Amino acid sequence: MFHGVIPPLCTPLTEDGEVDTASLERLTGFLLDAGVHGLFVGGSTGEIAQLADGDRDTALRTVVATAAGQVPVLAGAIDTGTRRVLEHARRAQTLGADAVVVTAPFYVGVGDAEVREHYETLHAALELPVVAYDIPSNVHYKLPPALLGELAQVKVISAVKDSSGDLESFQKVLDRTEGSGAACLTGSETLADLALERGADGIVPGLGNVDPHGYVRLYEAARKGDFAAAREEQRRLAALFGIIEVADRGRVGRMSAALGSFKAALAARGVIACARTQEPLLPLTLDEAARVAALVESAGLGPVS
Amino acid sequence: MFHGVIPPLCTPLTEDGEVDTASLERLTGFLLDAGVHGLFVGGSTGEIAQLADGDRDTALRTVVATAAGQVPVLAGAIDTGTRRVLEHARRAQTLGADAVVVTAPFYVGVGDAEVREHYETLHAALELPVVAYDIPSNVHYKLPPALLGELAQVKVISAVKDSSGDLESFQKVLDRTEGSGAACLTGSETLADLALERGADGIVPGLGNVDPHGYVRLYEAARKGDFAAAREEQRRLAALFGIIEVADRGRVGRMSAALGSFKAALAARGVIACARTQEPLLPLTLDEAARVAALVESAGLGPVS
Amino acid sequence: MFHGVIPPLCTPLTEDGEVDTASLERLTGFLLDAGVHGLFVGGSTGEIAQLADGDRDTALRTVVATAAGQVPVLAGAIDTGTRRVLEHARRAQTLGADAVVVTAPFYVGVGDAEVREHYETLHAALELPVVAYDIPSNVHYKLPPALLGELAQVKVISAVKDSSGDLESFQKVLDRTEGSGAACLTGSETLADLALERGADGIVPGLGNVDPHGYVRLYEAARKGDFAAAREEQRRLAALFGIIEVADRGRVGRMSAALGSFKAALAARGVIACARTQEPLLPLTLDEAARVAALVESAGLGPVS
Amino acid sequence: MFHGVIPPLCTPLTEDGEVDTASLERLTGFLLDAGVHGLFVGGSTGEIAQLADGDRDTALRTVVATAAGQVPVLAGAIDTGTRRVLEHARRAQTLGADAVVVTAPFYVGVGDAEVREHYETLHAALELPVVAYDIPSNVHYKLPPALLGELAQVKVISAVKDSSGDLESFQKVLDRTEGSGAACLTGSETLADLALERGADGIVPGLGNVDPHGYVRLYEAARKGDFAAAREEQRRLAALFGIIEVADRGRVGRMSAALGSFKAALAARGVIACARTQEPLLPLTLDEAARVAALVESAGLGPVS
Repeated sequence: MFHGVIPPLCTPLTEDGEVDTASLERLTGFLLDAGVHGLFVGGSTGEIAQLADGDRDTALRTVVATAAGQVPVLAGAIDTGTRRVLEHARRAQTLGADAVVVTAPFYVGVGDAEVREHYETLHAALELPVVAYDIPSNVHYKLPPALLGELAQVKVISAVKDSSGDLESFQKVLDRTEGSGAACLTGSETLADLALERGADGIVPGLGNVDPHGYVRLYEAARKGDFAAAREEQRRLAALFGIIEVADRGRVGRMSAALGSFKAALAARGVIACARTQEPLLPLTLDEAARVAALVESAGLGPVS
Repeated sequence: MFHGVIPPLCTPLTEDGEVDTASLERLTGFLLDAGVHGLFVGGSTGEIAQLADGDRDTALRTVVATAAGQVPVLAGAIDTGTRRVLEHARRAQTLGADAVVVTAPFYVGVGDAEVREHYETLHAALELPVVAYDIPSNVHYKLPPALLGELAQVKVISAVKDSSGDLESFQKVLDRTEGSGAACLTGSETLADLALERGADGIVPGLGNVDPHGYVRLYEAARKGDFAAAREEQRRLAALFGIIEVADRGRVGRMSAALGSFKAALAARGVIACARTQEPLLPLTLDEAARVAALVESAGLGPVS
Repeated sequence: MFHGVIPPLCTPLTEDGEVDTASLERLTGFLLDAGVHGLFVGGSTGEIAQLADGDRDTALRTVVATAAGQVPVLAGAIDTGTRRVLEHARRAQTLGADAVVVTAPFYVGVGDAEVREHYETLHAALELPVVAYDIPSNVHYKLPPALLGELAQVKVISAVKDSSGDLESFQKVLDRTEGSGAACLTGSETLADLALERGADGIVPGLGNVDPHGYVRLYEAARKGDFAAAREEQRRLAALFGIIEVADRGRVGRMSAALGSFKAALAARGVIACARTQEPLLPLTLDEAARVAALVESAGLGPVS
Repeated sequence: MFHGVIPPLCTPLTEDGEVDTASLERLTGFLLDAGVHGLFVGGSTGEIAQLADGDRDTALRTVVATAAGQVPVLAGAIDTGTRRVLEHARRAQTLGADAVVVTAPFYVGVGDAEVREHYETLHAALELPVVAYDIPSNVHYKLPPALLGELAQVKVISAVKDSSGDLESFQKVLDRTEGSGAACLTGSETLADLALERGADGIVPGLGNVDPHGYVRLYEAARKGDFAAAREEQRRLAALFGIIEVADRGRVGRMSAALGSFKAALAARGVIACARTQEPLLPLTLDEAARVAALVESAGLGPVS
């Protein structure tokens, strides 16, 4: 179930901050047309941390309906503690998700023993497969490869999504999960070719919202063992990823800059109607959005018909 | 509204992990009898990060009903993004809270501008006063004293609860909020006397669950300017605080150790029925719980009749 | 030996970056006239990290000669590894220092066991008393109070200088070293009164270069138990400490801002000839230096005759 | 000058902690026989932070004499401030080094402007080329790729040694230094093949002390474009790198574990006489050393004749 290109979908919003389901349907269709192999709803890129529960559900319901079983739909169940995650995961199960993606607990100071308890409790209580999501920049804890290996070998987790940016650690995850059947996915936008070369089963790039065709080409080249071609595609995508550096970081934080640029690019391509992000994230300026649009165009990415 | 001793209540649980409302009523009564000046439901000490929304509500409802207006009830509205916090805050408003306590956004990478947006949006949307909660160990961001000062001067926030452990910074918060009418509360268990000497309006000590009489004596001494007496009380309480160091930290994380010891102490005093904490937190061993009980007894804190 | 006000001396430089011994003699005399109880040469404030060995020696030799035994002279022996520290410490011994001040090893990843080894080796090899220097902002490791207590009880260290800014931890150091004979010194500019109230033996404030008379008054008040007077003095000194926030932090780093302001203030008072700091630190602008001078003057600190 | 395999040499010590020049000559010859392309004396692996100046010089002198011009010798000039680095660099120049390797200033809080000043001052004062050394785990500051690019383009630095473990950042360094003539070296033991595939000019692996032949094979394969072969070699070396995880990390810190295992392996292979590391680093236990030796043997690395 967990392989290939699985973009973490942006959640398009109306001017008022409501989920724009028409745009989300369009985005889903755009990604499916590009040949992606799965859809991840409710990741950091999907602004799950900013969305109220009702909006999380609306987004998931919309994507499940639009995907209509063509590819698996993964749903983020991201929250601070086990019981909170469990409630999100059960709703996702009801809404038709095929797997849930879960970080270590955050906000509270826990150690490896509590993290193990967290995943074991979730696995025991859920029917859906659980994907362990390693994103230390947000969780401020790094899932240890040894622990991931153990959880994979006993089937508590079915996959790992590694957004640590640390390929040395990802290699250890690959080694430790070998033979377990658990898939290893990388969240890196710019090292996807190398991760695949090392044995990753799939990639979950936020930039995949903007250029899904590029990541599908990259993945297909790597799957055939043509790493030179994968690298060429990666090089082009890495340049495109420069859009996240357009916003003035003296004015806004890291997440406003990144998600604002993804949405500005999607709006420029005509995929979504409005580039608004959710509070407390701040929008790009008009000038910044125009520069993002220019970068998108110069990367050969025109409006989607 | 914000002054004196305002303990962040533990949330007693049954063996099955449900909110034990009878124990919570007993705890509330115990604190009121000790003369506390406010009650804070849904802080880190209250395991808000581990409690599902329904359990958060049950806890708040129980405390509001038991307090019956004798002292203000503050409710934590702790979540990752503005709209999520807003939903919690509105429920708290409906359930009878007198104020909401809100951290900076977490899990996502934000800067000062997004944090300002967060508090401004919440203030505009809510009728309850907003208390800014600075707890960098959990949020991985420190609320800048200058920003707190600005938000206080324009009445966006009505108080600051400082759990940074950084008294130099707290002094700056006192300076910057001077004249704004905003209260400054410290979350420190062991520097409460000094914080009061510097001008804090109140204290929010987790250990206040275990020995509320001690903290009330400390506060009253300080209020009368008898800092020598306050210091003596503080010295005794600091020794009692050693209960959080009983659990083997090679086995469990920081939060399991701290909350496990508070609950073991409350159970030893007969205030709550069961020392269970919520998943993924791990319990103290029987031996550790016995050592906590012994420390409590040796501090002269007997069973509550 | 370790009590009272022990300022960490700035190292005045000529325009060319050589040690300005005439200015250093003047600074030493200025501090002695103010009644300080010791002199600390070669701390972070003394730019030890920027000074070549020869310049470190020149500074120490100058201060030892000028002090002429009136008060003890402490010498920083700050370096990455044990043998390197040992060489510095032996030179300091030869040059007439009365004690050496030593941090944990840095630049390499060590744990508590190596830190213990470090201090034990130094103590065994030296005749001078060793002061453990806790400055996690620079060393990126916090000396654990329990370890400091053990080292103090067996006389491996003779004092602790705490520049962690963490008064909760300092309280633990006081508790753990009790009865050992080891002195506890705080490096805090703004919590000196509280540290003394809690039992600190002395204070080592960088700002003591600029206003030694103020810190001596603060210390003497606290020694007599007049903490209200100590607090008044502290309040004034905390306002003066605003000079370190004058420099534009978008332009220069933390250390350039702090040391640049100390030296600008000393130059404004006529104590040193030139405000230059050592490479790679960057100077204040003329405008920034003028603003520092104005703050110094408005604090009632005129030129020294 | 900067390409291929450039191992950061361990510094063999006698039982008493003196530099064992006979062993160091043997190690140098062993590496040259394996076909390495350069030698780096005085890196973290060489225990530069633990060696006194005289020992640093002895090590450099020994390697320069043994290499006798066959390959370039790079010398670490690692210290906290510019003038201190300058003194080390000048001594290295006198002793025959071909380049100096320099980190950002550490121990003091500096920003990008001071780091730029640091490298510019060193470049202006030295005749040797300067290699910028990015090792955030030790320096607690990450050299920004944009700054490295600018310094490379104006020839202030001649190469970058990246020991950040962050391949995304390394890719940016490659991009920003393109066309400057500056070489890009990776310090990664386990991602060397990928770094070379991305365009790295060389590799500086600490494990290259133990198995230089392996890294030379890896490099030569990559140079011919045979990345599959490079990857096979890398896989074997990554397994061998498990020796750094043998020591009990509850007992010793990261650096004791890593350097202790390198030296135990070199002693097991008969290259050096004694596995001692320098204070404050702690030795492996006899049992740990035996397990390292067994891992080395099972990797097919026998005694060197």
